Amino acid sequence: MKIIENGGVCTPLGFSSAAVAADIKGNRSGKLDLALLVSEIPCEVVAVFTKNRVKAAPVVAAMEQLKKVAKFSGIIVNSGNANACTGKQGIEDYKTITNSFAKKFGHPEDRFLMSSTGVIGVRLPVDKIIKSFDELIDKMDDEDDEFTRAIMTTDTRPKKTAVLVETPKGVYVIGAAAKGAGMISPSMATMLSFITTDVAIKKDKMQEILSNVVEKSFNSITVDGDMSTNDTVFLFSNGLSGIVLTDDEEIRQFEEALLYICRYLAKEIVLDGEGATKLVHITVKNAKSIEDAKTCAFKIANSPLVKTMFFGSDPNWGRLMASIGASLIDINPDTIDIYFNDLKYVENSSLIDPSLEKKVHDIMLQKEYEIIIDLKIGKGSSSVMTCDFSYDYVKINADYRS
Amino acid sequence: MKIIENGGVCTPLGFSSAAVAADIKGNRSGKLDLALLVSEIPCEVVAVFTKNRVKAAPVVAAMEQLKKVAKFSGIIVNSGNANACTGKQGIEDYKTITNSFAKKFGHPEDRFLMSSTGVIGVRLPVDKIIKSFDELIDKMDDEDDEFTRAIMTTDTRPKKTAVLVETPKGVYVIGAAAKGAGMISPSMATMLSFITTDVAIKKDKMQEILSNVVEKSFNSITVDGDMSTNDTVFLFSNGLSGIVLTDDEEIRQFEEALLYICRYLAKEIVLDGEGATKLVHITVKNAKSIEDAKTCAFKIANSPLVKTMFFGSDPNWGRLMASIGASLIDINPDTIDIYFNDLKYVENSSLIDPSLEKKVHDIMLQKEYEIIIDLKIGKGSSSVMTCDFSYDYVKINADYRS
Repeated sequence: MKIIENGGVCTPLGFSSAAVAADIKGNRSGKLDLALLVSEIPCEVVAVFTKNRVKAAPVVAAMEQLKKVAKFSGIIVNSGNANACTGKQGIEDYKTITNSFAKKFGHPEDRFLMSSTGVIGVRLPVDKIIKSFDELIDKMDDEDDEFTRAIMTTDTRPKKTAVLVETPKGVYVIGAAAKGAGMISPSMATMLSFITTDVAIKKDKMQEILSNVVEKSFNSITVDGDMSTNDTVFLFSNGLSGIVLTDDEEIRQFEEALLYICRYLAKEIVLDGEGATKLVHITVKNAKSIEDAKTCAFKIANSPLVKTMFFGSDPNWGRLMASIGASLIDINPDTIDIYFNDLKYVENSSLIDPSLEKKVHDIMLQKEYEIIIDLKIGKGSSSVMTCDFSYDYVKINADYRS
Repeated sequence: MKIIENGGVCTPLGFSSAAVAADIKGNRSGKLDLALLVSEIPCEVVAVFTKNRVKAAPVVAAMEQLKKVAKFSGIIVNSGNANACTGKQGIEDYKTITNSFAKKFGHPEDRFLMSSTGVIGVRLPVDKIIKSFDELIDKMDDEDDEFTRAIMTTDTRPKKTAVLVETPKGVYVIGAAAKGAGMISPSMATMLSFITTDVAIKKDKMQEILSNVVEKSFNSITVDGDMSTNDTVFLFSNGLSGIVLTDDEEIRQFEEALLYICRYLAKEIVLDGEGATKLVHITVKNAKSIEDAKTCAFKIANSPLVKTMFFGSDPNWGRLMASIGASLIDINPDTIDIYFNDLKYVENSSLIDPSLEKKVHDIMLQKEYEIIIDLKIGKGSSSVMTCDFSYDYVKINADYRS
């Protein structure tokens, strides 16, 4: 597997993209806010959607569409408006936009998907979007920088990557772009990710692999414990490399490459969390079960007291102990070890040596470090990526209609 | 029921208190940090403790003691050190202190309880505490201002109250003091409350009433969703009013008075939440069950995105919808109504009229208001008090060893 410098959704064969400023928010900011991703030949598409019980119209509509339609031409994506809590009108708007784009493009009307991110509860400006179609089609090329910028909301930087995988049958490519920032949590909140590949795999298998990989990447990060109405990871496969993956080893290799892509983007999302200044890996080891370990790691990773402690680089391990206990999983409160990177700071729930505090503080000043909680009562392990809570998190989110 | 102006733990007959500066933290701040509450005659004591699986030594020790000892003389309370994550040594320190105080006081050695709050993971300064006993005993009187101040940590103001209840048998009094601020959550985190009364009730009944009342007051508030290792609510009853409550109506009246006391203190704790600038009541109505309503109300009340929106007085109702969905309770995503006080803003999951935004914004500028979520699918209701997340929350909690 090779990482492709500056790769993105257009790196695999046959994918093009475009982006325009359609003034979705109506504030004439000139920001790129409407994007298009198209495959030269129809693609198979699989996806993982938010678990939130309040699902935005594009999530509800795309879930239905994926069940009914075998192959897709591409996807329209807008930022600035989530098309969420817009009732039946939201679904109608989705259909009006995707059908009319397909028509304009000369394809059957159910061949385009749509994905939205932004403010909740406001209708999409359907006319503005439709008026932008000609410009979008004119701008289509095999660059993906503008696509990646157009999907950003409170993100401070674009997030994209691609890898090339060598097989005895030849090489294929996987590319991806994501938007994140804020509201990122167990279920991928306000996170959109678009992954493209020119390799072919059986669709059921592709869905299974994507679900597994999302669980280990996007669903193992948290910025503030919230989960949005719109989160989706799409995987588009057009098979243009001519390679069809069939045997177990080939598929394992694809899963590994996809996991690399998704972990890379997930980490970028945490690093760009609203107001985040550092990335902390929380690993819970030797819990009674994997599920217990995950519950505990997320409880720690989402605790505002823990996250403000990260911001202050304060080795206040009592807050970790309190969070472990508050997760309500089975523990032995007297056998807990805590490490900061490789440094053991707490053994059997007691401080080893107060003079280690300075060393722990130095570790906590780093931009990225790991905290390992060893519960010593079972075999379940899980790891979560989180960020700190800073003044800027409050500022970004308290601004009137951020 | 009459509210007694400036009442507190010493207002019921036969209770005295005292507080001294014992330099528990070792920083010579001169802050009152060691307090004593004593009853003239032995009391019955019931309590509700933290559900955190990591319980501080004073919680573990007091739970044991309450099972073994029938009547108590009083309680020693310190701030500045939680005696948590201190292992067996912590339990030994608890016993050394309480036994030696009882001896000094001339009572059987298991007659005093102890309660602690403050930093986790550091041993109590046992010698300093024991050395302060003479001064504590000298200062004992029927004032409770200093007691209430001594138990404060990041609290910005003391919290106390008392009520007088008239019955055909005569009058009795209930008094109370509490400390809160930060880490306040479903299970009363870093919250200590001491309630005294001169009325007598059968002990089993008293425990049942206290548990009910705590569920409806201290366990229905949240500052940051964290739950501490030390939270406890104690109720001391010495019966000195000569009144014994036996019939159902009398007991109902007592429960009502106790609920008033606990709700008053719970509200004070939220209002004094770390960095809080306003108090918001979150009521979820017509959920499938009371449990569902409570899960949903807490999910909203603990969401950093919702809490920063309160700070910014931004009617961004989409964040409420996203939190409702993220609570994963049963809902119909198309039938949700949202009120700000009496103003209906959202009907059947859609905005009624965008021009109401100004009115909602004005409500959100108030120091205290209510948000009602009507799910319209069942009969379960629950209400939670929360506060906003401000810059100061981050400041208070990010300071090195706050």
